[in-house]
Amino acid sequence: MDPKSAYRELVERGRELAYLRALGALAGWDQRTYIPERGHAHRAKAFAALTGVVHRKATDPAIGRLLAAVEDSSLMEDPDVRANVIRWRRDYDRATRVPERLAVELAEAESAGESAWAEKRAQNDWAGFLPYLRRIVELKKAYAEAVGFEEELYDALLEDYEPGLTTREVARLFAELRPRALDLLKRIQASDRRPPVAILHRSYPQRDQEAFILEILPELGYDLRSGRLDPTLHPFAIRIHPGDVRITTRYFEDFFSAAFFGSVHEAGHAMYEQGLPEEHWGTPLGESVSLGVHESQSRMWENFVGRSLGFWRYFFPRAQKRFAALTGVTLEDFVFAINEVKPSLIRVEADEVTYNLHVLLRFELELALFRSELDPSDLPQAWNEKMRAYLGLEPATYADGVMQDVHWSGGSFGYFPTYTLGNVYAAQLFAAAERALGPLEERFARGEFGPLLAWLRANVHRHGRRYLPPELIERATGEPPTARYLNAYLEAKFGALYGL
Amino acid sequence: MDPKSAYRELVERGRELAYLRALGALAGWDQRTYIPERGHAHRAKAFAALTGVVHRKATDPAIGRLLAAVEDSSLMEDPDVRANVIRWRRDYDRATRVPERLAVELAEAESAGESAWAEKRAQNDWAGFLPYLRRIVELKKAYAEAVGFEEELYDALLEDYEPGLTTREVARLFAELRPRALDLLKRIQASDRRPPVAILHRSYPQRDQEAFILEILPELGYDLRSGRLDPTLHPFAIRIHPGDVRITTRYFEDFFSAAFFGSVHEAGHAMYEQGLPEEHWGTPLGESVSLGVHESQSRMWENFVGRSLGFWRYFFPRAQKRFAALTGVTLEDFVFAINEVKPSLIRVEADEVTYNLHVLLRFELELALFRSELDPSDLPQAWNEKMRAYLGLEPATYADGVMQDVHWSGGSFGYFPTYTLGNVYAAQLFAAAERALGPLEERFARGEFGPLLAWLRANVHRHGRRYLPPELIERATGEPPTARYLNAYLEAKFGALYGL
Repeated sequence: MDPKSAYRELVERGRELAYLRALGALAGWDQRTYIPERGHAHRAKAFAALTGVVHRKATDPAIGRLLAAVEDSSLMEDPDVRANVIRWRRDYDRATRVPERLAVELAEAESAGESAWAEKRAQNDWAGFLPYLRRIVELKKAYAEAVGFEEELYDALLEDYEPGLTTREVARLFAELRPRALDLLKRIQASDRRPPVAILHRSYPQRDQEAFILEILPELGYDLRSGRLDPTLHPFAIRIHPGDVRITTRYFEDFFSAAFFGSVHEAGHAMYEQGLPEEHWGTPLGESVSLGVHESQSRMWENFVGRSLGFWRYFFPRAQKRFAALTGVTLEDFVFAINEVKPSLIRVEADEVTYNLHVLLRFELELALFRSELDPSDLPQAWNEKMRAYLGLEPATYADGVMQDVHWSGGSFGYFPTYTLGNVYAAQLFAAAERALGPLEERFARGEFGPLLAWLRANVHRHGRRYLPPELIERATGEPPTARYLNAYLEAKFGALYGL
Repeated sequence: MDPKSAYRELVERGRELAYLRALGALAGWDQRTYIPERGHAHRAKAFAALTGVVHRKATDPAIGRLLAAVEDSSLMEDPDVRANVIRWRRDYDRATRVPERLAVELAEAESAGESAWAEKRAQNDWAGFLPYLRRIVELKKAYAEAVGFEEELYDALLEDYEPGLTTREVARLFAELRPRALDLLKRIQASDRRPPVAILHRSYPQRDQEAFILEILPELGYDLRSGRLDPTLHPFAIRIHPGDVRITTRYFEDFFSAAFFGSVHEAGHAMYEQGLPEEHWGTPLGESVSLGVHESQSRMWENFVGRSLGFWRYFFPRAQKRFAALTGVTLEDFVFAINEVKPSLIRVEADEVTYNLHVLLRFELELALFRSELDPSDLPQAWNEKMRAYLGLEPATYADGVMQDVHWSGGSFGYFPTYTLGNVYAAQLFAAAERALGPLEERFARGEFGPLLAWLRANVHRHGRRYLPPELIERATGEPPTARYLNAYLEAKFGALYGL
């Protein structure tokens, strides 16, 4: 086959798949926002129908032949063609290596697992949940064997979320973090400074919160002409297709931080998606590169920007005008309050210092599971031991411990590390941006968020999946991924706040 | 092939198609409610991708073979199987009779036509729009030739919206209506009674309107656990899938009727969809039968129920509590105001008496076009002549005349008659329901809407597409479709209001 025609057909097939997936993304958004209560059962079947169509199209043997026709040609000298074809080949091979029978069993076990998790967690019933989890771990091991790996099973799982990063590399990064995070937490707990968090728990009417968020996000760079904000139970950001990248948030009228920082976090994800090159839509060059890089964007906007003193130098007067609850509160007290460090049992409520310890714990347990050093039945005990060691806490229930997250029940092993990788990348990228642009907090204090976004657009967003995550980070920052910048950032920020 | 397996596969394929179409329906709902402004271009392409997938699946030659395997078997003695297979065969044959080239040309011409209509109408540019319309008429003639018809081309177009009803039959029904409607209008215009419509144009805050609608619709029988209400520009009802049937409305804060009666109208459509038998979802027995029958449900709830004196005997006290604008207004004045008869240029704003005249005009022009008795270029003159003859008005612009509706630009010829067929069926069904249940307004005055809905469920909704519309009407009412009941209803209702 003529390589040019083959490439053109690959692009067309990619676009068709992207548009079909877009309809699934929209249905997912709707399912988590506005679907009527009796619509859920049929919605699940609509997803299944679409998944079937998409899977058959994505694994069509014709794609293998089209790829081969381009791979053997001089078209590969075009860097765009080369990048797309390499990523397509990788995706196609991984998708086709999994026997259909295993894929179906896994999908069923994950679906059953998520339902069982919701039910058994509500009853704090670990023993009832264990058989589901055991089955998923077994199937995920078979899956990892099927797709293949370099050094160990867990590499194959990581590859789904953070391509190009090995278990060995993640373990090395986390080893840089662990002692420093534990030490910092210890010194913070010994400090006699305590943030005045009660000011965040006064009355913050939902309508005012929403108006405030909708006023501020566009100033950060989230384009509402290509997006929108809706309420939901579990916040998320989602690209339907170019021109439509939505975020959601959850409001508590007696807590300021949840909706506000949640929205800035999701807007960080959304700005990444809005910054992907539209001309490459439907091909890898138009896609985000990994969950870790995605999380670097959300965490950077949420924490490095949104929880900084400079940010609030600019926005606090407006917040005081909007919320009577902030009358008489000083800027410094407010910024200390939104940065409280306090060990807690629940990952999603954790602060910047303890968050990574929650993630490390999960990574270590997953690794032990997939190295068969730990049986699923031993998870609760191992969980509780690590919680004591890292955070000095022990959950009173399974629901607040080993059963708190949905990920494992849905087969998402290898996913948790990307949360902390996001923090690692965020710190490293933020430091590189400051080397290029000068101190950023001074800019934030003047309401200048454009330069940071432009730097991220140029160094991260516009590349899509051109580079693997470690290569992308190295090109953007001059160094391979390192936890040094995250350690330094946390030390400097929380050292100042807690007077260490 | 084994007939039982063949039938089972037909059902499975039907379900898959229904779920894929559900995702398209949801995307259509979203496009008309919450899509961000920059999302439209890509959304259109997502529809195109889905349409392609659905079309290929619906015209797959395997379906013809599966149908043949069942048609030749004793399975056809099962009435459900028989009904489904007959409808599937009809749909499949019609879809496969249109050459792909013509289908693509038509889809492109309709898409271009709708865009041109929006643009040219805003500029009142008939000459600029005419070439698009001419092309669509030509292609629709070719389409009608391709799908086939009994007596004349227009039959093939009607068949898309009102299967089983011929041009001859529609003309006969409309001939029953025309003189009576013109005479009634003349007498109303000669009456010296004038409804106090100013009371409807006081202040009706949107939030109060929405709360009022959401309070009342469930009492009529619209299940909000399987539905929702959202604001939009051009109101519609849409079933995504069972358990999810949504309506939309448009609010004017200085006009009560638009959102309220619009919502009751759409709820009428939605209650039909909510009443389709869920166990037949994905097969013809789970689908609505025609646009005319659909419109009979919406118009019945909007006008026969919602604009009746009995309805407001029950709800007016609540309306007065909700809206300060209604303080001191009498029930009788309010009911007269919401039933004002007044010739206007615009169909969608027309009252019950003049509405059908708008539809008759369009039907007569369409018929002349497809009988090649009228050239598209002669439409404006013919339009204006009929407007003068029927309503005594002449539009000052094309936008308020021949270009006012989107239908023709999108190729929807044969669609307009279903609006008046809806009124005809509504009157006939309502009369039959009263024969079974006794005077319904007395029930409405006590807040009893369940008996009417239950009668419609039993006599219309539960049948899906089991019968063709004329047969369905005859089974439900004991007579083939007749305009007699509509004539009598209009005469009685407006005779009383206007003291004729």
